[in-house]
Amino acid sequence: MPPHSEDTPGARLNAANPREDSRVPGGTLTTRRIEAFSDGVLSIVITLLVLQLSVPIISASASDVELTTRLLEMIPKLFSYVISFAVVGIYWVGHHNLFHFIIRADRTLLWLNNLFLLCVGFIPFPAALLGAYGKRRIAVIVYGMSLTMTGLTLALIWVYATRDRRLVSHDMHPQAVRSGLKRILLGPGLYGFSMLLCFVSVWISLAIYVIVPLIYILPGRIDRHWRRSTEAG
Amino acid sequence: MPPHSEDTPGARLNAANPREDSRVPGGTLTTRRIEAFSDGVLSIVITLLVLQLSVPIISASASDVELTTRLLEMIPKLFSYVISFAVVGIYWVGHHNLFHFIIRADRTLLWLNNLFLLCVGFIPFPAALLGAYGKRRIAVIVYGMSLTMTGLTLALIWVYATRDRRLVSHDMHPQAVRSGLKRILLGPGLYGFSMLLCFVSVWISLAIYVIVPLIYILPGRIDRHWRRSTEAG
Amino acid sequence: MPPHSEDTPGARLNAANPREDSRVPGGTLTTRRIEAFSDGVLSIVITLLVLQLSVPIISASASDVELTTRLLEMIPKLFSYVISFAVVGIYWVGHHNLFHFIIRADRTLLWLNNLFLLCVGFIPFPAALLGAYGKRRIAVIVYGMSLTMTGLTLALIWVYATRDRRLVSHDMHPQAVRSGLKRILLGPGLYGFSMLLCFVSVWISLAIYVIVPLIYILPGRIDRHWRRSTEAG
Amino acid sequence: MPPHSEDTPGARLNAANPREDSRVPGGTLTTRRIEAFSDGVLSIVITLLVLQLSVPIISASASDVELTTRLLEMIPKLFSYVISFAVVGIYWVGHHNLFHFIIRADRTLLWLNNLFLLCVGFIPFPAALLGAYGKRRIAVIVYGMSLTMTGLTLALIWVYATRDRRLVSHDMHPQAVRSGLKRILLGPGLYGFSMLLCFVSVWISLAIYVIVPLIYILPGRIDRHWRRSTEAG
Repeated sequence: MPPHSEDTPGARLNAANPREDSRVPGGTLTTRRIEAFSDGVLSIVITLLVLQLSVPIISASASDVELTTRLLEMIPKLFSYVISFAVVGIYWVGHHNLFHFIIRADRTLLWLNNLFLLCVGFIPFPAALLGAYGKRRIAVIVYGMSLTMTGLTLALIWVYATRDRRLVSHDMHPQAVRSGLKRILLGPGLYGFSMLLCFVSVWISLAIYVIVPLIYILPGRIDRHWRRSTEAG
Repeated sequence: MPPHSEDTPGARLNAANPREDSRVPGGTLTTRRIEAFSDGVLSIVITLLVLQLSVPIISASASDVELTTRLLEMIPKLFSYVISFAVVGIYWVGHHNLFHFIIRADRTLLWLNNLFLLCVGFIPFPAALLGAYGKRRIAVIVYGMSLTMTGLTLALIWVYATRDRRLVSHDMHPQAVRSGLKRILLGPGLYGFSMLLCFVSVWISLAIYVIVPLIYILPGRIDRHWRRSTEAG
Repeated sequence: MPPHSEDTPGARLNAANPREDSRVPGGTLTTRRIEAFSDGVLSIVITLLVLQLSVPIISASASDVELTTRLLEMIPKLFSYVISFAVVGIYWVGHHNLFHFIIRADRTLLWLNNLFLLCVGFIPFPAALLGAYGKRRIAVIVYGMSLTMTGLTLALIWVYATRDRRLVSHDMHPQAVRSGLKRILLGPGLYGFSMLLCFVSVWISLAIYVIVPLIYILPGRIDRHWRRSTEAG
Repeated sequence: MPPHSEDTPGARLNAANPREDSRVPGGTLTTRRIEAFSDGVLSIVITLLVLQLSVPIISASASDVELTTRLLEMIPKLFSYVISFAVVGIYWVGHHNLFHFIIRADRTLLWLNNLFLLCVGFIPFPAALLGAYGKRRIAVIVYGMSLTMTGLTLALIWVYATRDRRLVSHDMHPQAVRSGLKRILLGPGLYGFSMLLCFVSVWISLAIYVIVPLIYILPGRIDRHWRRSTEAG
């Protein structure tokens, strides 16, 4: 039994029975294990976001009004907490949607996935930066850049897995591959665009950071399109 | 295979065999996955609560008495740790009780659940605030508001899932639906009430924050009522 | 289906087939779920222990010798990290050993287990305290008290579960019950004893804190005794 | 039922059907449980690495240029984040590869594995140290020492498990045992070597810290060798 048996010919022959294939004891790092590890990292990242919210320090003699004022000053941090939570939630859903179609694993997929986790695991930093300095251009850029990178690594996973139907079903419809990619790229595209727009006004960028999660969360035209094209496949 | 196959007609037809239904490989984000992710977030949140307890800093020349005094001053933080731990524990149990009856998942459930996790994931902040400024009205209000919001999102999940038996068994008894809702709303109701009472005295509010977990933890009348009515259903 | 079906007569009848029983879909909070949640909390607690090790802050002009000195001063923190890691590891093993025999769950078990997790989740604080002020009596006492409490709650779970064979196999041998309890109580007993001895010398207490994990980790007489008596049962 | 039934003769007889063996309900701490706990710890460690990246504090009157400068000064921390993330990822993969062959568990394996987790759980500290003082020799040494120790404990697990085929398949080829060990020791060997080289120049050590992950991540000669020899076995 070789340690990387996922990419042996035998594993590929099992493709007709895809989900079973990912659970065979023969493979060491199956798609199921990769998903479980990713779920772990994503749930920790989403929970660490709250750590940027540190309790304000006031003197014992300070009034309640003072504490209230300090708490109200934390609203930008709360804003960053909420939109970053939504973004990580979206990446969790997006990651699952991809791995619904990815039925084989290989060494490259594993490390592309780790690259994605590296980007996701980094999000608490730009989230804290945006919470602290949300009106400064550089904070808005770093936040947008971080989310763009995360989205691009997710797209990279999809491109690698679907090229020549490497890790997906051999009879996956080309339209389904393209629709999936379009949907994944929508996020980084908009985030990249908003980074440019912050040179016009940071408020436009911040508005886009609010709108992008809503596009993914609210059901809409793009969903129907994606569903239709995959049903065709 | 559409990426959101949970809400396809096929998935609904499987309702006769509910728990199996949630494990079919066809679905991408089944109730089982949502539960596992929620369990992950809840276990991290409950463990992060200890981070509000930071070791007091005293000079090397200070006496043991000095350190003991500083540790005794941390009792309000310890109080907040204990009641917040109990509250997150209760939400974990409550979440499981709901997902015992919720046998199908859809996109809206997923995001209502993420909204619940957003509220739960926020709890370490008001917990730390209450630990630091437990005798100040604003800290008591923020704590109560946070727990009220968390309870209301849980109630929202239940209302969404049971309306027209959308995601629960089609033959669930109306009494069971109502009993479940009543039990969930008890918490946010009491927390909301205690927020108002803090304008009389913060001590009353703090007392209620101690009592609410006990109501849920100790077996009592409401349990028997809930059990009886669900057994009827 | 009642929400607490673990303690229905039906569940008790399944006792002949114990491990299966814990996985029936009918129960909401089965022993398996409680174990999974506990595993989650314990793995987070054990990993949070490192957070007490914060990087020393030195000025840019300070020499490498200065940084080395500051790092050497962290050895007590490293000591606390290692013994606390061992202790949480032991509680993880001990918890599993108990839940190997506990084959049914009820509401009281759930909350006794949460009480245990409350104590375990608290450990990073006394661990950090011992790391910072290891030669001060109060730090040694708080550390010992925390570990004593954790061990006692574990013993409480065992007593509750085995009293009248409430949640264990009905034909469990009395000797196995007693051996298990003795083994669990060894830890809190020694920790309690070491707390008293710190009034003689904190060094004795610290030595005991090193020895207790070794007793549990190294295989020995007590193990053979426990194995023999359970095999008899 | 003895609490450590993994090392009973019965468990050894099951070796013909290895993966099943690790899931028998009779064992309390099976290889599967040890793997799950290790996965939990590793995913938390990898996510905690971001906590060393704290948001720079600047005054409200400071310019955007000031903030940008402070962010650029964080590049060494980012460097440490990336290479440490890669290293923990490699240990995760390596750990899985070992446990693909380890089909039985015993008490010693459990505690050797906990020793490995102790070392892995410590990594956030040297990672933060390297991020803060990457050009200072002592930081480079502590980082290298930490990674060397982690690799050596992994090697220790392999040696213990394969000696007399204690916990692996009885017919495992000697060549496969040696190849596995060589592959595991490559990391600590190079890290140990780089620690020595830091007395020539810290830049050489840092270069090796970048190269080691790449050797493991990029597919290469050593992989083919390992695969060939295990296929022979």
